Amino acid sequence: MKKKLLSMFIAASMSYTAAFANAEYLNPNYKVKVLNSINSSKDVKKLSKSQLNDLADDLRYGILNRANTVGGHLGPDLGFVEPTIAMHYVFNSPQDRIIFDVSHQIYPHKMLTGRKDGFLNPINKNISGYSNQDESEHDFFKVGHTSTSLSLATGVAKARDLKGEKYNVIAVIGDGSLSGGEALEGLSNGAVLGSNFIAIVNDNEMAIAEDHGGLYNALKELRESNGKSSNNIFKALGYDYYYLDDGNNIEELIKLFQKVKDTQKPTVVHLHTLKGMGYEPAVEHKEQYHWQMPGFLNQKDSSPAQSGENYNTITTNYLLNKLKTNKNLLVVSAATPSATGLTPDVRPLFGKNYVDVGIAEQQAAGFVSGAAENGATPVWEVMSSFVQRTYDQLSQDIALNNNPATILVFAGGIYSADMTHLGIFDIPLISNIPNIVYLSPTTKEEYLHMLDWATTQKQHPVAIRVPAGAVVSTGEKDTTDYSKLNKFKVEATGQDVAIIAAGDFYQLGKQVKDKLAQQGITATLINPVYLTGLDEELLNNLKADHKVVVTLESGVLDGGFGEKIARFYGNSDMKVLNYGAKKEFTDRVSTDELYTRYRLKPELIVEDINKVLK
Amino acid sequence: MKKKLLSMFIAASMSYTAAFANAEYLNPNYKVKVLNSINSSKDVKKLSKSQLNDLADDLRYGILNRANTVGGHLGPDLGFVEPTIAMHYVFNSPQDRIIFDVSHQIYPHKMLTGRKDGFLNPINKNISGYSNQDESEHDFFKVGHTSTSLSLATGVAKARDLKGEKYNVIAVIGDGSLSGGEALEGLSNGAVLGSNFIAIVNDNEMAIAEDHGGLYNALKELRESNGKSSNNIFKALGYDYYYLDDGNNIEELIKLFQKVKDTQKPTVVHLHTLKGMGYEPAVEHKEQYHWQMPGFLNQKDSSPAQSGENYNTITTNYLLNKLKTNKNLLVVSAATPSATGLTPDVRPLFGKNYVDVGIAEQQAAGFVSGAAENGATPVWEVMSSFVQRTYDQLSQDIALNNNPATILVFAGGIYSADMTHLGIFDIPLISNIPNIVYLSPTTKEEYLHMLDWATTQKQHPVAIRVPAGAVVSTGEKDTTDYSKLNKFKVEATGQDVAIIAAGDFYQLGKQVKDKLAQQGITATLINPVYLTGLDEELLNNLKADHKVVVTLESGVLDGGFGEKIARFYGNSDMKVLNYGAKKEFTDRVSTDELYTRYRLKPELIVEDINKVLK
Repeated sequence: MKKKLLSMFIAASMSYTAAFANAEYLNPNYKVKVLNSINSSKDVKKLSKSQLNDLADDLRYGILNRANTVGGHLGPDLGFVEPTIAMHYVFNSPQDRIIFDVSHQIYPHKMLTGRKDGFLNPINKNISGYSNQDESEHDFFKVGHTSTSLSLATGVAKARDLKGEKYNVIAVIGDGSLSGGEALEGLSNGAVLGSNFIAIVNDNEMAIAEDHGGLYNALKELRESNGKSSNNIFKALGYDYYYLDDGNNIEELIKLFQKVKDTQKPTVVHLHTLKGMGYEPAVEHKEQYHWQMPGFLNQKDSSPAQSGENYNTITTNYLLNKLKTNKNLLVVSAATPSATGLTPDVRPLFGKNYVDVGIAEQQAAGFVSGAAENGATPVWEVMSSFVQRTYDQLSQDIALNNNPATILVFAGGIYSADMTHLGIFDIPLISNIPNIVYLSPTTKEEYLHMLDWATTQKQHPVAIRVPAGAVVSTGEKDTTDYSKLNKFKVEATGQDVAIIAAGDFYQLGKQVKDKLAQQGITATLINPVYLTGLDEELLNNLKADHKVVVTLESGVLDGGFGEKIARFYGNSDMKVLNYGAKKEFTDRVSTDELYTRYRLKPELIVEDINKVLK
Repeated sequence: MKKKLLSMFIAASMSYTAAFANAEYLNPNYKVKVLNSINSSKDVKKLSKSQLNDLADDLRYGILNRANTVGGHLGPDLGFVEPTIAMHYVFNSPQDRIIFDVSHQIYPHKMLTGRKDGFLNPINKNISGYSNQDESEHDFFKVGHTSTSLSLATGVAKARDLKGEKYNVIAVIGDGSLSGGEALEGLSNGAVLGSNFIAIVNDNEMAIAEDHGGLYNALKELRESNGKSSNNIFKALGYDYYYLDDGNNIEELIKLFQKVKDTQKPTVVHLHTLKGMGYEPAVEHKEQYHWQMPGFLNQKDSSPAQSGENYNTITTNYLLNKLKTNKNLLVVSAATPSATGLTPDVRPLFGKNYVDVGIAEQQAAGFVSGAAENGATPVWEVMSSFVQRTYDQLSQDIALNNNPATILVFAGGIYSADMTHLGIFDIPLISNIPNIVYLSPTTKEEYLHMLDWATTQKQHPVAIRVPAGAVVSTGEKDTTDYSKLNKFKVEATGQDVAIIAAGDFYQLGKQVKDKLAQQGITATLINPVYLTGLDEELLNNLKADHKVVVTLESGVLDGGFGEKIARFYGNSDMKVLNYGAKKEFTDRVSTDELYTRYRLKPELIVEDINKVLK
């Protein structure tokens, strides 16, 4: 029975795939057929069956066009076209509230709710790639991190009930987000609301990479039994449960949504959809086409360009080499392996020494702490924006126990990003936890030597802020003894002005030093190396012949590294100027504008220094 | 069938209870029978059946004696006596690794592993109430926050497998901890380890208070079906599953553990135990006896003494009153209601306007954000040490969306505590997130007025650091307009020295001011009110006739409030002295010693001020 269903599905998806090749919406000159008449649910309801199918073509064109023009999520949106159409056909958005998780699959919803221009003409109409209530009354939250929709929806539903209102509250979750702790907590709580609460689980068999963990085996068993397996986590939690194997079939979706609409019981609708549906390469290479860069439609091979060396490849090569001598190396990712260099081609090379825990950062933290305690050499690679998802585990599981796990924090820094994905908060987050050593390398050689130290010492948890900028190489092997904690490196000795420039901003520090030299000031240039403690001896010595200390960090100032220097000098005559980001959520602001706003340019910094030296 | 089993169990537990009344171990002069010969698993294995039962009596005596002498967890430990004996009888600790969650139920384990003196003679032998590898090779982690054991154990098991070692890795979780996100992430990942991994779920039908959420309904259904229900979340995730209804029966426990020992499959052992077993009041009043204060055995009524007004009662009374005019008030706790004044007697008064989400802080954050978005007035009460468990949701779910949820942070401050429960990290955690307003009241009147503002305004998420010290009342109604953000209050105007004293430390600031007055210095005294922003106009004005600014905050200095003041004055001649806690995990250090160490005493602070003024 299982096998038969499975092979039926394989056959079906193969025929889908074959059908895509000549799909009319792949034509760059495609003209949308019905999308222009659609502004919200009520317009979708007017369409005939064939018009609904035309609308699906229009939406696929919009998804491909946007991603090809400005980049964006691709596979999950392509796979969620039909469910979105059916949702809007059956439910009355925005009275019925559709709450999207993580927004990987929100493009079709955006196009149906007044924001089609952002997809048909993305150059001229700057629409965010994420749920955003400032854009539309059909969105209710700004969301870019996974696993939040169920919790948010329980709150929305509870407020509805307190107010005595009646409408559907629908959480849309999928693409691997269900394994995140908040999602599971929300799932458990949604079950006991005692009123209308509909969770649509978009099961496309994937996270960004493959999905991982017992939870996804549970979904697989449900898929393979056409929803009939008695092993059903949703029913076990108290949900009414509905399964649809062909989750890209508009008619069946409409029937199913009509069945659950206005239910007063907690309900899970489990949809089996095809990630990438409608675009053959995205079905064949699901991880690669989860997100794409502009221009991918015209490229033969659209794997991300790996032009030369970068910190992802440096890291991967280091770890592969390490594995030769340390069979207890344990490389860990929480569902973002490719973003940190653990691409599909290299993951198999690590064998059992690589574990993807799924979207489950708390688990990653507990896992590496446990593995370190028991003598393995765990290295967890995580993005700055996502390490936020596990503060308490960093503190209690790892730091309090002083277990020698290595945490590599990628993409930390001040740069243009969606407001949901800023990389500026990791320094305050990590560096104010006792026991953790947070290192900030400025060159490839430092980074490699820090990796050596972190993965051989047994005294501390060590986090390394992997440079987010271009690779800087000195060509000289680093031989620093990093076990001498909080020993800053004096790279050039001068007087009057000392520049303490951390990580990626070390180069900015050099530029400031050079600019000062033009006006006859020989500045001291310091690479602090450590973001978690101060070199008090050095800082005290600076008092003798320095008047001002400048700190540069590529992160938010509040709670960051520079403020610790300011506190240290509080009782002295030393002036301190801290540079970094203001405490704010910036949304797709250009890096150059951010640098100007925060005065992160040599000429602006020198201007400030001169004011203080007067 | 279900009903029959249920009534059998009720009858059984009633007979337990009746049997307790004359239990010999309740005699203060009880002499232990076999405990003195037990130092680890191998000693337990030598005991006869009747000696094992004697050992259970000994352990109950130890639990009661310790809690009655120095205070401690009671109900969960009493209920886990027999499973602990059986674990040590069957498994070979420490080769087999037993990893405890949260440590609410670890006392019997401690007594069997060389630490009995801490229970038989707790005055003379200071043993921590929590798992601690520095105390014994039978403990593997320092643990005091819930829901971590499964994640930690997956890491331990993975390291074992990489090293090619063979032994059992056993996670013990219960007492409501299974609903926490990390536990659920860990449960999902434990299922796919592919090797020995045993989760013992100690189901005593409770968290600290009642357990909440669909997860606990799922456990209930399993209990009521004697483990037979097809709705089985553990099986759904891929576990082999065993249920024991009489989880306090040593013989049955031994048989069951022998069955699962050395299994190579992921296995859940679901034990139904009786919280408080062996001490009648603890069975009758499970929440009250979760933890007890010294001397409870001799008291008639051992409800926590509520002598006069405190910030818990002030908060509860305020909210009960608020409910009269705002039917959309939503009071939320994540499983610690009594600790913040939501005691069992008052919870029913809130009716549907009160929700305990269980041990699930991320859910609490998402829930209140969703409820605020949809027009309810959510107020979440949380302990400082546990608000750490949801940084990303504070940032992404609440702050990024600027939803007007109110978060009351209790027990924040510098005081003697177990290293796992420090209250010093909430200021860096919360105050460096954009958009949140974090208020620090210094008096009852301020607190009440801040509550008024927080729960009526619609512009910001507002957190309030509820004073942890004694109630200070001015008797004068506060009429401050808190919507004028970051407006500090100047309480006394002087010159040379300005003292910015936040929250509980405002009184310390006053003492410093008084002490300075004795030497002829009239200091300015400022209540900053806001921990999330600076009153730049005021701070600039101080430059005119002040030489030094002193900041006082009852929390860690790193990333905290004072450093922001130091940064502000970095480019000026103003000296800044920051007072607060050092970045360290302190373990049961007395408050007085902490105050001395951190120089938080008027005479020490004045000494420092005089040095700077010289």
